[in-house]
Amino acid sequence: MVDCGEGAQVQLRRSGLSFEKLGHIFITHLHGDHCFGLIGIISTFGLLGRIATLHIHAPEELRPMLQAQLDMFFNYDIGYKVEFHGVDTKKQQVIYEDRSLTVETIPLNHRMPCAGYLFREKPSLPHIRREMIDLYNIPVSQINNIKSGQGYTLSDGTLIPHEKLVTPADAPRSYAYCSDTRYMPELHKMVKGVNTLYHESTYAQDKKDGAEKYYHSTAQQAAMVARDAQAGKLLLGHYSARYNDETVLLKEAQEIFPNTYLTDEMKVFDV
Amino acid sequence: MVDCGEGAQVQLRRSGLSFEKLGHIFITHLHGDHCFGLIGIISTFGLLGRIATLHIHAPEELRPMLQAQLDMFFNYDIGYKVEFHGVDTKKQQVIYEDRSLTVETIPLNHRMPCAGYLFREKPSLPHIRREMIDLYNIPVSQINNIKSGQGYTLSDGTLIPHEKLVTPADAPRSYAYCSDTRYMPELHKMVKGVNTLYHESTYAQDKKDGAEKYYHSTAQQAAMVARDAQAGKLLLGHYSARYNDETVLLKEAQEIFPNTYLTDEMKVFDV
Repeated sequence: MVDCGEGAQVQLRRSGLSFEKLGHIFITHLHGDHCFGLIGIISTFGLLGRIATLHIHAPEELRPMLQAQLDMFFNYDIGYKVEFHGVDTKKQQVIYEDRSLTVETIPLNHRMPCAGYLFREKPSLPHIRREMIDLYNIPVSQINNIKSGQGYTLSDGTLIPHEKLVTPADAPRSYAYCSDTRYMPELHKMVKGVNTLYHESTYAQDKKDGAEKYYHSTAQQAAMVARDAQAGKLLLGHYSARYNDETVLLKEAQEIFPNTYLTDEMKVFDV
Repeated sequence: MVDCGEGAQVQLRRSGLSFEKLGHIFITHLHGDHCFGLIGIISTFGLLGRIATLHIHAPEELRPMLQAQLDMFFNYDIGYKVEFHGVDTKKQQVIYEDRSLTVETIPLNHRMPCAGYLFREKPSLPHIRREMIDLYNIPVSQINNIKSGQGYTLSDGTLIPHEKLVTPADAPRSYAYCSDTRYMPELHKMVKGVNTLYHESTYAQDKKDGAEKYYHSTAQQAAMVARDAQAGKLLLGHYSARYNDETVLLKEAQEIFPNTYLTDEMKVFDV
């Protein structure tokens, strides 16, 4: 989960996603709409009998506050471990890694320390061609060897080359989440080639000065980052309440980067 | 507002009630479902440009946590004053008074310090009988005198007695909010004659032992308090999630106190 505003636990339940599958929460910065839901979700997990550790990645300033809340509201016993990982919002670096993915920080330019997060899938193995397995009667024990790059030798000594037995692996996917931030002309370098870029777009272009003043971006500025990064897709969000209809933001962004979409609560996008 | 769980600001907005009219929030105890929405509502009031002081009445333990949150999230400047009033949950006493109402604490029996709140309207003035004003051509300047108990002397010296000019004042109303608590056989004495009693009813009677163990009440126990207090009306609430349909709670309570109702989110009751 990236950011956790008030009521995030309600939306998570509505989404139908399993609470248990959530192991890590990444907080970009300490404005209320990005972190006030944290203590509620932590509390509910405890009531539901969670035992797996929950990892919170957030700017260091949150650590004492979160600890004080845990101590006070749960009397030092919530039934599972909440592990805090302080995030340096000034550096781009890998802060999390497992078998299938890495997470990097993206230093942003906001009124307070703020980091975006870049999720990169690791390269995966090629896909076995089912029909070749059947054709050559290849035993299950050989599947992992073949996936890892080997060919297969038939009983008559013929070597079936690896390339004939597999189709190429899917390209690793990546997703960058950039909110909240002023327009950063160099941001594209940190998210180069990302499949899907979420970039805040608080204002339309007529409020460009307001965006600068309040440390936010216009939809066009978001589109410029997507264009310069050669992103696959741009998702807009974090709209100012002044826009009853965000189509103006979408149109302005699409002038610069056509493959742009408006996010909304509970809307789902493929990466 | 009494208690302020996560998302209370959303429900408040949905209710259509004015944010500006909310001057005091009374917190019964420091479980998350009763106070996690506080920092969000305080934050939103600031963003909306509130200038009037907001008063928080809550168990003393909340004071340092709330102060730390205010300092951290709003950098000491939220634009208006949040004034904290520590509540002694062990004493029944008046903690608030203005021209039209008093608020008393009601010590409850929960796992942690917990106080209910009793709201009592002050006696109001009698109503002027419009037709008498017209009949005797009484000037507006005399209305307050008459409301305060005087009669009116006509130009020919005839005294029209006070009682003829008014209808009696409405009886002062009262509302008691009791959550969360074990059954307290003496609670009725503290809420004697209350118009409307809200009393938690977490369980049905078959879970009476569980209610005792977890410091909660059954619907029948709530009804016993209402009956013994000679309350006008009983509102049930705080139902265990085990009940998909709370009718069982309603029925069990009504066996003891017929004028009982089930509360639900956004449902409105007259006091």
